[in-house]
Amino acid sequence: MMPDKLRILGIDPGTRYTGVAIIDRYGNQLKHVYSSTIVTVKEKNLEEKLFQIYNGLKAVIDEFKPTAAGIERIFHSVNVHSSLILGHARGVAMLAVRSQNIELREFAPTEVKSAVVGVGRAGKDQVAAMVRILLNLDRQKKMREDESDALAIAICFANTLDYQNYKSAT
Amino acid sequence: MMPDKLRILGIDPGTRYTGVAIIDRYGNQLKHVYSSTIVTVKEKNLEEKLFQIYNGLKAVIDEFKPTAAGIERIFHSVNVHSSLILGHARGVAMLAVRSQNIELREFAPTEVKSAVVGVGRAGKDQVAAMVRILLNLDRQKKMREDESDALAIAICFANTLDYQNYKSAT
Repeated sequence: MMPDKLRILGIDPGTRYTGVAIIDRYGNQLKHVYSSTIVTVKEKNLEEKLFQIYNGLKAVIDEFKPTAAGIERIFHSVNVHSSLILGHARGVAMLAVRSQNIELREFAPTEVKSAVVGVGRAGKDQVAAMVRILLNLDRQKKMREDESDALAIAICFANTLDYQNYKSAT
Repeated sequence: MMPDKLRILGIDPGTRYTGVAIIDRYGNQLKHVYSSTIVTVKEKNLEEKLFQIYNGLKAVIDEFKPTAAGIERIFHSVNVHSSLILGHARGVAMLAVRSQNIELREFAPTEVKSAVVGVGRAGKDQVAAMVRILLNLDRQKKMREDESDALAIAICFANTLDYQNYKSAT
């Protein structure tokens, strides 16, 4: 049995730009509720960036009260230093979700692309275009890639979700 | 002019073990106030570990009310994956400090060793032994390396601190 509604948070964390998205799933329907980018590129200190990311995510969670959250699993990055720095932002994002007792799931990048575009090796542009189509977004709506990626993660969660399994796993 | 008292938090973050230390500096005197290790090795999920680390640090900050905090600067780690994971713990630790409006300083590992042992290439055992001597700790007191390292970072902060500069920088 499908739930009446599932509200899903998608997060694409980064120390400079963090994409945040909220979508609703009613049965097999997906609806865009909210999406934005938390911009911290101007903050000088890493701790200040992390504080803004945490507060930004907390504000979205408080306002939209999602019951589930998705974040990308990361296997590797450009180099050791950038992995270390990215880890800071991702850790704070995971904490924001866990602090509100929201179920968190991690998805491999190929899972996200498969769920949104149908193929695991889809390009960034294809993902962004399919996000717009799947959520029926206005063509004029401008989105940073981070915001679009956060929506893609939320869609992936919604589309890969077998609610029976979801329920029994929680 | 020296402050009457400066209470310093030292943190050695890790997803399995996080060292936490509080020391007081009165003039040139150092006093051990508290130290421990937040153990999260048994938690299955990374978000649960991060939540425990954050809550553990918050509890220590709430109880001892440090006015300054030190954490090690990290340049590299064993590999990309371990850097990414370590970044999560370090990010959450920095957030715990920033959330309480505590001044945070980062120190290079060689700075910490120089401040505690006198040479930047000191071994782990030398650091641990000097921490005990400088803080006049009971020889019987058992400490994990994480706890000892957190004390070393706090000592480094205390010893490298020119309060005039510290004050003007804040």
